Amino acid sequence: MPRYRIDIEYDGRGYAGWQRQAADQHSIQAAIEKAIFAFTGEMVTIRGAGRTDAGVHAICQVVHVDLQKEMDPDKVMGALNAHLKIAGETVSALRAERVSEEFDARFSAKARHYLYVILNRRAPAALMGGNVWHVPRELDAEAMHEAAQRLLGKHDFTTFRSVQCQAASPEKTLDRLDVVRNGDLIEITTSARSFLHNQVRSMVGSLRRVGEGGWNADDLEAALKAADRSRCGQVAPADGLYLVRVDY
Amino acid sequence: MPRYRIDIEYDGRGYAGWQRQAADQHSIQAAIEKAIFAFTGEMVTIRGAGRTDAGVHAICQVVHVDLQKEMDPDKVMGALNAHLKIAGETVSALRAERVSEEFDARFSAKARHYLYVILNRRAPAALMGGNVWHVPRELDAEAMHEAAQRLLGKHDFTTFRSVQCQAASPEKTLDRLDVVRNGDLIEITTSARSFLHNQVRSMVGSLRRVGEGGWNADDLEAALKAADRSRCGQVAPADGLYLVRVDY
Repeated sequence: MPRYRIDIEYDGRGYAGWQRQAADQHSIQAAIEKAIFAFTGEMVTIRGAGRTDAGVHAICQVVHVDLQKEMDPDKVMGALNAHLKIAGETVSALRAERVSEEFDARFSAKARHYLYVILNRRAPAALMGGNVWHVPRELDAEAMHEAAQRLLGKHDFTTFRSVQCQAASPEKTLDRLDVVRNGDLIEITTSARSFLHNQVRSMVGSLRRVGEGGWNADDLEAALKAADRSRCGQVAPADGLYLVRVDY
Repeated sequence: MPRYRIDIEYDGRGYAGWQRQAADQHSIQAAIEKAIFAFTGEMVTIRGAGRTDAGVHAICQVVHVDLQKEMDPDKVMGALNAHLKIAGETVSALRAERVSEEFDARFSAKARHYLYVILNRRAPAALMGGNVWHVPRELDAEAMHEAAQRLLGKHDFTTFRSVQCQAASPEKTLDRLDVVRNGDLIEITTSARSFLHNQVRSMVGSLRRVGEGGWNADDLEAALKAADRSRCGQVAPADGLYLVRVDY
């Protein structure tokens, strides 16, 4: 069966997350599968590179799907967007291409890149509501960046892992964790082959403590080394999190 | 009575525009006046620098309001945001300050700056839906910028004016109209002391014709000189328009 890679953008507000769940839950996966059914008549199961949580967004999620019929990838993209629009989904297909059966959106991924956006000003978000984390107290982005470097490399990330995480091991290798201020926005960019459940949001919540001055870099490192979930700062909300890119 | 200047951000989706209208219409002005009533008990009429249309956004709209009671401006801002949030409005007070009675948000304004954002790619907007104009066909931003310069200066802008415009004269002086590509986004920045009704959206719609190659700079200039509304391109939708700044 011909396999297609499709790159997807979505606004995660109003969705129960990436993964198809109970029939009454509105997931991104189900929205795309329904749209594919609408123009192919095929009940497919798609696979995504990142199983983003409820409310998390994607600038570029990657999926693969096998269709019975051979179709021009451009037509797949066009039909998919037409049916997503009819259904009122905030999901859009950026590109589609034919790939070999070797390609697996999830298991072939070599790196995943996420962006977390904090709106750091007194006034709440009106224009970016649902797409940023509003932190009114002034954060020291440089201190956050400096401390963040302590988390790079291979570690047991139990402190920054949801208790519901199903990964076999809490060990991951973190390749990048940059914190940059851009006006009222603080942009946190992070890369790894893969992340534990809630890892990015847990790291961001703890970095906020550093930014507010409650923690220093040593405190963050000690929390990591404790490998103890109770040492994690507040888990940052889904609103500010974006899956940005997946490398293969 | 003490006068306050308040700077306001809003997402215009779901609003009938800036101006208070019939009671069943949801306007930004009414949303703010209701929130002020909630913490002062005063039925006020606020005045805004720009009377933005339905669906138009503001990165920074400026208003003034007279209150009976003297209040710390910081508390005005805090209380206003608290009550806007309770009401579920996508409106936020960025700053508040005491100003003299000479200050009039509308009539003291020396310049107004607007931004128009076009998403120029094949895929529809998922993340920026309602906040950009999606134009799938590739636009030549440089040609648009070059042509736009023909509109600068003092002209009769009848071509680019809504038939409902209530301004006494169709003459305006346009100080800036820049078109810049930024990845998939085309950002159009424009400045003038004041604009006619629908002027920015009318100019953007006509610039799109230039970007698609249907018009050149001479065609745009001829449309301006004709001073004939029927010569205007499609009026661009409200979605992509932002009031960015007001100078006093």
